[in-house]
Amino acid sequence: MKALAFDIGGTKIYSAIINENGEIISEIEKFSTPKTLDGIKEILTNEISKHEFELIAIATAGAVNNENTAVIGSTGNLVEGYHTLDFQSLSDKKVFLENDANAAAWAEYKLGASKGTSVSIMLTLGTGVGGGIIINDRLLKGKSGAAGEMHFKMYPDKRRKCTCGSWDCFEAYTSGTALKRDAEEALNTKDVTTYDVIEGVKNNDSKMIEIFNRWQNDLIIGIQGLANLFDPDCVVLSGSMAQFVDIKKVEDEVNAEIICPAISVRLAEAGNHAGMIGAALLAFGGQN
Amino acid sequence: MKALAFDIGGTKIYSAIINENGEIISEIEKFSTPKTLDGIKEILTNEISKHEFELIAIATAGAVNNENTAVIGSTGNLVEGYHTLDFQSLSDKKVFLENDANAAAWAEYKLGASKGTSVSIMLTLGTGVGGGIIINDRLLKGKSGAAGEMHFKMYPDKRRKCTCGSWDCFEAYTSGTALKRDAEEALNTKDVTTYDVIEGVKNNDSKMIEIFNRWQNDLIIGIQGLANLFDPDCVVLSGSMAQFVDIKKVEDEVNAEIICPAISVRLAEAGNHAGMIGAALLAFGGQN
Repeated sequence: MKALAFDIGGTKIYSAIINENGEIISEIEKFSTPKTLDGIKEILTNEISKHEFELIAIATAGAVNNENTAVIGSTGNLVEGYHTLDFQSLSDKKVFLENDANAAAWAEYKLGASKGTSVSIMLTLGTGVGGGIIINDRLLKGKSGAAGEMHFKMYPDKRRKCTCGSWDCFEAYTSGTALKRDAEEALNTKDVTTYDVIEGVKNNDSKMIEIFNRWQNDLIIGIQGLANLFDPDCVVLSGSMAQFVDIKKVEDEVNAEIICPAISVRLAEAGNHAGMIGAALLAFGGQN
Repeated sequence: MKALAFDIGGTKIYSAIINENGEIISEIEKFSTPKTLDGIKEILTNEISKHEFELIAIATAGAVNNENTAVIGSTGNLVEGYHTLDFQSLSDKKVFLENDANAAAWAEYKLGASKGTSVSIMLTLGTGVGGGIIINDRLLKGKSGAAGEMHFKMYPDKRRKCTCGSWDCFEAYTSGTALKRDAEEALNTKDVTTYDVIEGVKNNDSKMIEIFNRWQNDLIIGIQGLANLFDPDCVVLSGSMAQFVDIKKVEDEVNAEIICPAISVRLAEAGNHAGMIGAALLAFGGQN
């Protein structure tokens, strides 16, 4: 069995052929995400016509319904009306969708850092923060497919607006964008980037270290809450910001203040295309 | 089938006979919780010898392992060493244990406010805050049985100590004790009780209303985070503080700022002995 896999994000669309072992067995193709629905459809249709495969597996931004057939609700960084796209109409082969963070969490569970665990949580720390939670061999999907969103509050009193429209979500304190905002607030300037903080830490700049530690402490605080709620075996960190995290320190500090038995904190291992791999493995029938 | 059910808490132990429909079919007996392990054993042994039943179902304070045979770790408000108690040794009938909040959540799911839902969260707002989460007909237990603890953080910067030893947990802002602390902080006195605030609200005292609203807002903020994580059908509120909550307002304000489809917020319906009832239903083999 071969799956034609896509990863549809706000800025890029990727595609590749993936086998039942979760191996990418083709070139990976990359497109800028079109600003129109027809543009997105055209990319998908073109790829579908070019390849031979048994099913189509799509990791996408946005929440995916429990039937794995459609995106529900609006997806801020994709074209308006994206959730009306009838993916199945594009092919006579089965089309399977899953949220990109959920799909990547599944790849980690099947092939990567959380393999063999009973309860795992993946946090994707990038421009935003994604989440995927696996409990006893199943993704946590919720009543409608929207579960696993890392939008729990870090303050109750409306300090920092979140991309979701609400205030003070975990995402607003632990994304790459959040580190820039931490720096803006600490230095009282808009003229500072995430990169500046990371470089400053490398160069032993005490102010930048303080800013980074605040960001990392917010990550620790959030993971402590997740640990007490889910009693997970492990929390897996992925995304562009994960590489800067002091994994050992985070694990130690989390475990020092939780009431469930100790958890493991790990870096993701399934690679940059974990979303496509996880979607393919799920589409092949991965969940019990 | 009849179960001899117990509810073992920090101050009281209850016991009753419960049938397979979850009906209490005996007098409910009530004891003060002894300060020694032998004292607790004596109560259990006495009740066991007095009744006829097919199994023993215990709702207990503390986290219960995934085998439902023992409490794991220490339980702050029960005698030291409680987790070493070998409950099965007290009878030749099957002894089944579950955490009291989990058991009560199960009773709500089978007979009460969350009946027929696929994902539900129960919050018990009493002296402390308990939690029970049910996902697709199963209690969320985690790797070791300790899941469902409402100890996620309301602030990241160490303001209010929690009973769990950490800081700023949801429990520390939404329990009855928390309302007293809110009042102490707002009025700058130790000489104020939870009851004073509730009475003040009834008498239209604007300061007490402000204090109560802060407490209720913290509840709303916490439920919003849980909603985004679990995408539940409903959140059920139980415990002595639940009766004071403006359920409609909480539901409306939660739904105004979450990214999953709307949730329902409901008062518990399974009564004061939901813990014993849920433990009995679980012991009879309730979970798939």
